[in-house]
Amino acid sequence: MISKEQIAADYQLIQDEICAALEVTDGKASFEEELWEREGGGGGRTRVIQNGNVFEKGGVNFSAVHGHLPHTMKKALNVDQDDFFATGVSIVIHPNHPMVPIIHMNIRYFEMPSSFKPGQQPVRWFGGGIDLTPHYVIEDDARYFHSNLRSVCDQFHHDFYHRFKLWADDYFFIKHRNETRGVGGIFYDRLTASDELSWEQIFEFSKALGRSFVPVYTELVIRNRNKDYNDDQQLWQYQRRSRYAEFNLVYDAGTRFGLETNGRIESILMSMPPTAKWVYDYHPQPGSEEEKTLSLLKKGVNWV
Amino acid sequence: MISKEQIAADYQLIQDEICAALEVTDGKASFEEELWEREGGGGGRTRVIQNGNVFEKGGVNFSAVHGHLPHTMKKALNVDQDDFFATGVSIVIHPNHPMVPIIHMNIRYFEMPSSFKPGQQPVRWFGGGIDLTPHYVIEDDARYFHSNLRSVCDQFHHDFYHRFKLWADDYFFIKHRNETRGVGGIFYDRLTASDELSWEQIFEFSKALGRSFVPVYTELVIRNRNKDYNDDQQLWQYQRRSRYAEFNLVYDAGTRFGLETNGRIESILMSMPPTAKWVYDYHPQPGSEEEKTLSLLKKGVNWV
Repeated sequence: MISKEQIAADYQLIQDEICAALEVTDGKASFEEELWEREGGGGGRTRVIQNGNVFEKGGVNFSAVHGHLPHTMKKALNVDQDDFFATGVSIVIHPNHPMVPIIHMNIRYFEMPSSFKPGQQPVRWFGGGIDLTPHYVIEDDARYFHSNLRSVCDQFHHDFYHRFKLWADDYFFIKHRNETRGVGGIFYDRLTASDELSWEQIFEFSKALGRSFVPVYTELVIRNRNKDYNDDQQLWQYQRRSRYAEFNLVYDAGTRFGLETNGRIESILMSMPPTAKWVYDYHPQPGSEEEKTLSLLKKGVNWV
Repeated sequence: MISKEQIAADYQLIQDEICAALEVTDGKASFEEELWEREGGGGGRTRVIQNGNVFEKGGVNFSAVHGHLPHTMKKALNVDQDDFFATGVSIVIHPNHPMVPIIHMNIRYFEMPSSFKPGQQPVRWFGGGIDLTPHYVIEDDARYFHSNLRSVCDQFHHDFYHRFKLWADDYFFIKHRNETRGVGGIFYDRLTASDELSWEQIFEFSKALGRSFVPVYTELVIRNRNKDYNDDQQLWQYQRRSRYAEFNLVYDAGTRFGLETNGRIESILMSMPPTAKWVYDYHPQPGSEEEKTLSLLKKGVNWV
């Protein structure tokens, strides 16, 4: 049985690998690191890259926190204990180029140490996901992204991609806009060991997902970073970012968990866009690329 | 006993007066009107002004809606019935000039018509508020604003300003930032008739508050609109606007009510800033005007 210390240590390595690779891809900016401690217990390493050649604002967070859950979270998680340990890596990248997509990745592990008693079922699970939010949906890129996720999933369970892709469609959904946040990806939560899959395999799956981030996103950056764009396209990018802000503040479980458990606010909200615009009642021109993008922001699109 | 039709009609007049006056103050832009109907019943008049001399984006909404409350709202409001009628005027103005403050005003009336039975206590109340969010806190302006609110309150009840000012401090508070949204103002909710105050007086109070908006805000615009400002100050303005966006999406009861009751999304989110910026872990220079502003964004400042 893998220990929480082992999981945290391996996740930290993944953070290191990702930051190093993103700096190479950007070629100009480097990460600034902030080490922080949580009042209730534990802490993290927040790393932020800003004003690069490609990355206008990006965060790659590692944290390993512990303490006591507030009553509302206990109810939401449907658990009896209130002591918890949570560790994870969380990424959001806002590129400066409208044709380079926003990306988000998260791998996380949660346990309630007091439930680890002989003869008792310990409370522990893995969660995670990766999803892509293009300002302009480029169908080839969306297919490339999803087929890579499918390959990662297929190494661990024939059903993972299908299940977790549907889950992402439901999760990364901006209900009040009736649109998905982007072209989706995969999302899973409360994944526990079963006859089919051991804890070790689930842990390996989360690490494989974490390690798929760099090659997949690098490819999407390289494909698009040198394309021309104009001011109208940049304005559209800023409008799409405002939808991203709405999703994170209204729906995102990790953000709301952070706000409610008194987390380090700048680490939680490093996912917010550097610049966002809200234009009243904007409707794209019929037949435009912007309209095409909106038409693809819906659940149930099969990208593989 | 005033009817809901009377209240809606008078509120609509106040919307007209405010829009006419703001157009004069701006001198360039005019309001665009959108009439809308709500699927569940009722509708509204959304009026938005954009890209003016002073007003970069502002909305002055009137609505009168009715229908059935979702289960979650019934619980939140602690009521037995589920039919409701709600009418109100709601304003948010984002000026283009960093020295001109953001302002918000709302007057509203809520009732459950099925509770209006002989011998029964009808469920009905008034609510409202007005608060000021300067990008740079100018103490004279804050004092001017609060003393005007106090004058309006004092015409109706000696206790109103004191009670409703404290309520605004608590309501317009960005908990996760540990800062108030601005310099506050007044806020009240579920105000009902009592031995001291009749329904007519409460209604008149809400209209007096609505009618105070134009002279008070016009004065603050005129005081500041011709001041010089630089790019750094504009950047600071955009950062303050991101706090405003956070408040509205995370805490504002009206916004969350609208999102949950499937309201007209562009009318609900007309309050969002035209441009907002999130800069990671920004700390103003010691001794700067920006730092001074942050130091004044706290509860319990006595402005009168």
